[in-house]
Amino acid sequence: MIKLTEVFVLTSGNFDLTKLTKRVEDFVAECDVETGLVTVITTHTTTGITVNEGLPCLEDDIETTLRNLVPDDYPYVHAHWLPTYGRTSANATGHLRSMLVGNNCMFPIRDGKMVLGEAQDIYLAEFDGPQNRKIYIEVIGE
Amino acid sequence: MIKLTEVFVLTSGNFDLTKLTKRVEDFVAECDVETGLVTVITTHTTTGITVNEGLPCLEDDIETTLRNLVPDDYPYVHAHWLPTYGRTSANATGHLRSMLVGNNCMFPIRDGKMVLGEAQDIYLAEFDGPQNRKIYIEVIGE
Amino acid sequence: MIKLTEVFVLTSGNFDLTKLTKRVEDFVAECDVETGLVTVITTHTTTGITVNEGLPCLEDDIETTLRNLVPDDYPYVHAHWLPTYGRTSANATGHLRSMLVGNNCMFPIRDGKMVLGEAQDIYLAEFDGPQNRKIYIEVIGE
Repeated sequence: MIKLTEVFVLTSGNFDLTKLTKRVEDFVAECDVETGLVTVITTHTTTGITVNEGLPCLEDDIETTLRNLVPDDYPYVHAHWLPTYGRTSANATGHLRSMLVGNNCMFPIRDGKMVLGEAQDIYLAEFDGPQNRKIYIEVIGE
Repeated sequence: MIKLTEVFVLTSGNFDLTKLTKRVEDFVAECDVETGLVTVITTHTTTGITVNEGLPCLEDDIETTLRNLVPDDYPYVHAHWLPTYGRTSANATGHLRSMLVGNNCMFPIRDGKMVLGEAQDIYLAEFDGPQNRKIYIEVIGE
Repeated sequence: MIKLTEVFVLTSGNFDLTKLTKRVEDFVAECDVETGLVTVITTHTTTGITVNEGLPCLEDDIETTLRNLVPDDYPYVHAHWLPTYGRTSANATGHLRSMLVGNNCMFPIRDGKMVLGEAQDIYLAEFDGPQNRKIYIEVIGE
């Protein structure tokens, strides 16, 4: 049994971490499978999906770390006028942070529930917001 | 057919790389599927799952690289007294290295065996040890 | 229904980004499943699989970013004579960039087609080329 859904998130800042854990748990519960795998995949190239402990202090450290590794102020080649954008691109950092963070995660399903470690939360990481973002959640189960 | 198991690893240092390849191969063989996908997922937020060539020299370079990218000595916001921990957190680096490395991997199964490239080993990367760690291995096959 | 195929790519430089999107789309179409998941997994430890917008300017920024994070000129421990290689290893950077980028990606399948966001392309990232590379594409569907 394979089931797919879309969830939408309106992010609230240029850099923003939104917890998706509850929405994924709810979809898994709806799917009514005993055992399986759930995957979470973003449809965007300036966002990431990452798993970490859900603490505000860590969210700050994640932002600082990604700004240190991919600096805001740097002569990116992508920062030029793009006909397909109709404007000068300002989101090279978002594309590059997305590459480092990754665009999906997955967890087992057992006894009908997603199995997370006790400190694990699933985050949508916004690197070019605020924007309305679409994420897929897919369950493979039996 | 979907099968899930847990494996436990007692890591041996603050930073430590433990090969999981043999344990994953063994579970795949037990599952007795012809074709499929095997996934390896950590339940922790200060560990990673990564795939690389299984050489001690590279293990040293992985450690140095992650210490360069996420320095041990830095004013992390997470480094404060946490009521839920009952102590001052000292593992911000572990959470951040985990984000860069990722928390899962997957490989195809063909003719009943996990298909790895000839240089590929699966590692549990410990970033806040030594600790007893739990990892899921899940097989989807037919 | 689970189907697995291999695709081969002859990369064209030491650092090189090759789009795999069309090949993955074609395999998904051949598999003739309605709903499912497609995964793309490299068999090598000095390549990555990454998802980003398919623009030459971004490809340049990806290369620069990875050379900044994992510098070409650094005293890597892996840079020594290796009996198994029969030569001095020169690809430590490739192994380390591979760890940061990751070695797989996955997308949903709906109505018989891989579902990508409008800006998403799938790349094989070569970090130690030119070489002939083998990648797995696996479809789980129904």
